[in-house]
Amino acid sequence: MGTVHEALDALRLVDHHCHGTVTGPCDRAAFESLLTEGEAWPGISSFDSPAGVAVRRHCAPLLDLPRHAPAEEYLARRSALGEPEVRQRFLRASGTDVFCVDTGYTPVPLTTPGEIAEAAGGTSYEVVRLEGVAEAVLAAGTEPDAYADAFRTAALDAVRRPGVVAVKSVAAYRTGFGLDPARPSDAEVTEAARGMLARGGRLDDPVLVRHLLWTAVDLGLPLQLHTGFGDAAIRLHRVDPALLTDWLHLTAGTIPVLLLHCWPHQRQAAFLAAVFERVYLDVGLTLHHVGPARSGAILAEALEITPFRKLLYSSDAYGVPEFYHLGALAFRRGLADLLQRRVDADELSLPDALRIARWTGRENALRVYGLAEDG
Amino acid sequence: MGTVHEALDALRLVDHHCHGTVTGPCDRAAFESLLTEGEAWPGISSFDSPAGVAVRRHCAPLLDLPRHAPAEEYLARRSALGEPEVRQRFLRASGTDVFCVDTGYTPVPLTTPGEIAEAAGGTSYEVVRLEGVAEAVLAAGTEPDAYADAFRTAALDAVRRPGVVAVKSVAAYRTGFGLDPARPSDAEVTEAARGMLARGGRLDDPVLVRHLLWTAVDLGLPLQLHTGFGDAAIRLHRVDPALLTDWLHLTAGTIPVLLLHCWPHQRQAAFLAAVFERVYLDVGLTLHHVGPARSGAILAEALEITPFRKLLYSSDAYGVPEFYHLGALAFRRGLADLLQRRVDADELSLPDALRIARWTGRENALRVYGLAEDG
Amino acid sequence: MGTVHEALDALRLVDHHCHGTVTGPCDRAAFESLLTEGEAWPGISSFDSPAGVAVRRHCAPLLDLPRHAPAEEYLARRSALGEPEVRQRFLRASGTDVFCVDTGYTPVPLTTPGEIAEAAGGTSYEVVRLEGVAEAVLAAGTEPDAYADAFRTAALDAVRRPGVVAVKSVAAYRTGFGLDPARPSDAEVTEAARGMLARGGRLDDPVLVRHLLWTAVDLGLPLQLHTGFGDAAIRLHRVDPALLTDWLHLTAGTIPVLLLHCWPHQRQAAFLAAVFERVYLDVGLTLHHVGPARSGAILAEALEITPFRKLLYSSDAYGVPEFYHLGALAFRRGLADLLQRRVDADELSLPDALRIARWTGRENALRVYGLAEDG
Repeated sequence: MGTVHEALDALRLVDHHCHGTVTGPCDRAAFESLLTEGEAWPGISSFDSPAGVAVRRHCAPLLDLPRHAPAEEYLARRSALGEPEVRQRFLRASGTDVFCVDTGYTPVPLTTPGEIAEAAGGTSYEVVRLEGVAEAVLAAGTEPDAYADAFRTAALDAVRRPGVVAVKSVAAYRTGFGLDPARPSDAEVTEAARGMLARGGRLDDPVLVRHLLWTAVDLGLPLQLHTGFGDAAIRLHRVDPALLTDWLHLTAGTIPVLLLHCWPHQRQAAFLAAVFERVYLDVGLTLHHVGPARSGAILAEALEITPFRKLLYSSDAYGVPEFYHLGALAFRRGLADLLQRRVDADELSLPDALRIARWTGRENALRVYGLAEDG
Repeated sequence: MGTVHEALDALRLVDHHCHGTVTGPCDRAAFESLLTEGEAWPGISSFDSPAGVAVRRHCAPLLDLPRHAPAEEYLARRSALGEPEVRQRFLRASGTDVFCVDTGYTPVPLTTPGEIAEAAGGTSYEVVRLEGVAEAVLAAGTEPDAYADAFRTAALDAVRRPGVVAVKSVAAYRTGFGLDPARPSDAEVTEAARGMLARGGRLDDPVLVRHLLWTAVDLGLPLQLHTGFGDAAIRLHRVDPALLTDWLHLTAGTIPVLLLHCWPHQRQAAFLAAVFERVYLDVGLTLHHVGPARSGAILAEALEITPFRKLLYSSDAYGVPEFYHLGALAFRRGLADLLQRRVDADELSLPDALRIARWTGRENALRVYGLAEDG
Repeated sequence: MGTVHEALDALRLVDHHCHGTVTGPCDRAAFESLLTEGEAWPGISSFDSPAGVAVRRHCAPLLDLPRHAPAEEYLARRSALGEPEVRQRFLRASGTDVFCVDTGYTPVPLTTPGEIAEAAGGTSYEVVRLEGVAEAVLAAGTEPDAYADAFRTAALDAVRRPGVVAVKSVAAYRTGFGLDPARPSDAEVTEAARGMLARGGRLDDPVLVRHLLWTAVDLGLPLQLHTGFGDAAIRLHRVDPALLTDWLHLTAGTIPVLLLHCWPHQRQAAFLAAVFERVYLDVGLTLHHVGPARSGAILAEALEITPFRKLLYSSDAYGVPEFYHLGALAFRRGLADLLQRRVDADELSLPDALRIARWTGRENALRVYGLAEDG
């Protein structure tokens, strides 16, 4: 039957939440900026971080460099190989064959779901970011009193495109979750849409964020919610998923809700997954930022009380393809360490451990998104 | 002198907070529902959780089954033995001889403190849940302006019954702890009681919750407070015990306050126990939900700064008697691992480790509740 | 090249935040009180705590006692040696040669920065506590409408004294961080100063706390901010450093901000250090309260995503000189364990590990405060 490590190394992962990566050349400044959720700062190299150390350790060998290669050599080799080759190497190495790609954040040109799938030799699906749909509706000249209908129609159109399996909201970045959980009235939405137009069309009004979340319920697809860790626009204390509890009560029995990232609130997310039937979580993004040295500790907290059908894998890779590989590696290594230790201590049977590995790395995602096993 | 594990295995525990268990037969649906703080959901077995895995590992052998027995076999064997036999086996196995039983939550018929003590071969005491007393007072037709006096009288009557050693509040479930810490005025209480009557008699008004907490101070007995983890009615961000700080300042020097469960806020609870003379904590409920594989990690956080006279043991077992055993096992194992590791690293002397084990597993509770060593 | 433990043991630390210790004799009651962030309570010895156990283990040998010496013997030996000898032994043992001393909290006479440096055979600098400056200004009879100018002038005078390298705020103790982040208007400050005078001159008004923080920005020196753990006057939920995010956005690009202590919010602090260029953190105070048995776990959380140029060492020693030694020991041991484990697992190269040790234990502080390597 083999060990848990062997099983997880062999498992084809489903990455239920990721992004594309830059398509053009990536110089040192650009790479260092993409390596961190902060920015590239003068005098401090982004490589001098847990993620940077992990890239030098685990990504360098895939570029034919020694482990722990210096940053300069790493960047030089990366440039010499070119972004398409680098991308393909890391995507193949990730052992991932299904990707659910959030296509709604593209400040620079990024690979498409199709390009990701092709480079990986796998299959991709699309996740529609609802804030983008809503803002496009207003940018197209929609009147405030037509906003609610127009947004719903546009969202329905968006999710009916082939390959769309979920929607996503970045409410975390806009208002956080300290919201009135109730569905807003039409009049409130119109009024708020008027204000949003006046302020320049960014969806950051609490009423419109609530309306967006309830529209997601109407759409019927699984809803991915950014929670916890992100860039400096996040207020960590406002993105504790526990703040969603009232809304989860009101929407219980409707759509699956997938809490993304979660750190440092993974225990709060686990609580919600343990008590609400349709709540799931992952610790994507965090995994590659902390690296394999610490991913087991995060997963151990995330799994303290989480039912084993409720944890999913995601890389949340964005910008550089290293993160598809590093996220997958940190997940496999961290989870295998944790499960094997329990097997060795006879706290868990090996068949149970292998089942938990398959569920969390692959089958839970196939199940939630209704994907066939052949991709 | 033996090892810490031997000492903890031999120690008769005081379970300072638990409930009764179901008296009738427990079918699969009922058992799966009681196994989780969530509910039994279609398509997801409650056994596929850390608590479920721990039950199959550590409870199955007590029912004459192999370790990690399948859920079906476990349930069949359980039914064959019958609830009284199962109860007695787990209570005896728990190595607990003193039980402080919260009798205030009985949606189904549960074993009484006397039945628990008899099955365990030990002694039991009663903990009076104040919300139940208050709601009974109003349900009996008390006028709003007579509520305060009637509640106090009823509570005094309740705590003067033989065997009552503490009171408990589930303010966490009603309003959370984001309350004005001051004692409310008579007029405020009357007004709030009027509203409560009009709303159907459930004590969920902030004024009445405050009044209840202050009435507990007047009663003079130790007050057990649910904090942190619980079922879906909990809002985790509103039950951080740190929110009680102002109230603890106002009531300093009065009654002992016992923070129950605490997870994921065990560090906040530890802080309060470290800086307030009469504040104590446990990590009951969490222990059996995370199981022995993870109880040491929770205890390590709970004990980071907690004075060793301030941590108590509780199972918070409810519904199924497995949790008396599993809670005790997870406590012994987790604490022994932690202490023995420190002894091995020469960070702690063995006599100190054994003292800490005795204090936290038994003597702190005897001391706080004023119980004689013979039970 | 040696191991990480050897390197960290040999490294001369920079303690970027500490206090003086009592100058007179320290009897049992006084020592027990200083051993805890709570108070000395009847019937519970402060020695029966993680910090007490660590003192008996790691400090007793420096007083020529066996490891784990009983508290009575420890106190007797301490008295026999006398405070100056005890102080010198612990300061020398700490292996620290640069101290940045907060001189603004002296409820009893404490050693001066000069005395600390002399006893340690090192160098000291001063950190000016701004609340003290502000309160002295008003106590000197300043009119409310002159307060803003007078405070700024007094603060400038204070920081221009030789040896001053930073300012500090205990806003955490006064209001917490749930403040309007904007700089208050002159009229608001005058009005608030009037109220503060009327209430007795303690700076606990939100407007004045905001004004103090913005005055720190004007001063241009690094600002140390108490966050997290402290005595009973702290409300842990109001001192989560994440609450500072809006203010950090408004002040980005100005002064370095050093988040002190942080526990249990070290992950939130790490997030801020990871996304804001000028934000740094330490886990001082916590280290000696949890001791070497647990300091590695705290450091592991603090370093999960923190760039390696962003973590600093501090003891936050106050009152008893044991804490200079214990803080340093807990830091060295915890960090060395963590780094060596990663080296052993080939997750980190040894040169990288040694660099991270030097940076966090010494060089990051020299850099932030602009101190020359020779002290």
